[in-house]
Formats: sequence, structure tokens, C-alpha cells
Amino acid sequence: MVTMLEVTDVTAPSGEACCAPLAKEPLTQADAEQLSITLKALADPARLRLLSIVASSEGQEACVCDLIEPVGLSQPTVSHHLKVLTEAGFLSRSKRGTWAYYRLLPGALTSVAGVLSI
Amino acid sequence: MVTMLEVTDVTAPSGEACCAPLAKEPLTQADAEQLSITLKALADPARLRLLSIVASSEGQEACVCDLIEPVGLSQPTVSHHLKVLTEAGFLSRSKRGTWAYYRLLPGALTSVAGVLSI
Repeated sequence: MVTMLEVTDVTAPSGEACCAPLAKEPLTQADAEQLSITLKALADPARLRLLSIVASSEGQEACVCDLIEPVGLSQPTVSHHLKVLTEAGFLSRSKRGTWAYYRLLPGALTSVAGVLSI
Repeated sequence: MVTMLEVTDVTAPSGEACCAPLAKEPLTQADAEQLSITLKALADPARLRLLSIVASSEGQEACVCDLIEPVGLSQPTVSHHLKVLTEAGFLSRSKRGTWAYYRLLPGALTSVAGVLSI
């Protein structure tokens, strides 16, 4: 019997700048692969909305209980998207009582913005 | 008979900033959808390398004839990736003699970097 395990194809970047701005020097294959993984984690409308809600919340932190209604998706779907963003280094997760709270980790965003800056 | 037509799912953004920085206010559904399309066009290692080679070339322009060897892909594959980047507003294309030349259009990159800036 073969057991299939679904693995999300995002790795946790360090939060440090991956590389020089695109317009300064050509990306290496390794840097391009890492950056494409980070961009794929961002390139989803629901994840972008969730990230922007957390990032614009007080203290750049939000309870998962406050994220479900604004995006109009089920709790399991929201939790999946938050897991992808956490694994990609955009969010950190902490549990308090019944609920999970997500906080913005600005390193990964700053890194991507830096590479795309002209 | 059904004819299948492959359509690249990227539209041409205007090159203007799509929206306020993520950390300032939540993205609307429409802005999140547009931004995710732009990010998907970027989220590929070959396209990131091609874009960085063009962006770091003299005059931020390069002949397709000089882009094939550095990325180690076939000419049709390179042309496909360049088409996706052009349709997404990152590059412009002009034909001179036998070859096509691609030039960086910085608007789309600046727009994405601006949204991701904290």
C-alpha cells in the first residue's frame, strides 16, 4: 500500500533579504527558486487579503476568529491559507485559550519588496 | 469537435500602483485578485531570472538571443516566459531585424514592491 502525503511546497525563509535587487544583478538559479516559492505563497487572493488584515490590525496581530468572516471562507480553508503564510515566514502563530493568533513577521515581505525595488 | 485554446491567465496591469501598502489597510477582493495575477506571473524561477537579466542589462533592455543561453532553456520556452512577463506589464517588446528585444517597464515591479513595503 502506498500512502500519499500532501506536502505544502513552501519552505520557511529566514526572513533575511534573499538577494540583491533584480535591476542590480541577475538572480542565481538558487535565489530565483527560493524567491519563486515565497511569491507563490503570496500569489493567492485569499492569502493576500488575510495577510493585509493581519498586517493592518492593531499590533499587526489578529485572532483567527476575526479573520473568517471578512474573507467569507470556511474555517478549515482560512486555517490552510494561514498555515501556508506561516510556513513561508510571513506570519507567526501563537495559541491563547481556544484561539490561534497570527502576527505579521515583516522580514519576508521586506525581503521580497527589496528584491523588486528598482 | 472541441478546440482547446490555451490562454495565459495574466492580464496587463496598468503599471500604476494597485493599492495601499498591505500594512496600511486590508486589500479589497478586487485588488487582491489583480495583485495575485501579477504575483503569479513573477512566481516562476525562469521568469525571475529572465526579468533580472533584462533589468540588470545596459539600458534595462536585452535581445532574446542573449537570454536563451543564461537560463539554459529552449527558445520557445524562453519566448513563452517573456510573453507572460510582457502581458503582466513587466516588460515591453520591440522587433528589430531578426530579433525581439525586451525592455524593463518598472511600473509593475514598483507597484508590487510598494504594496509589500511595511
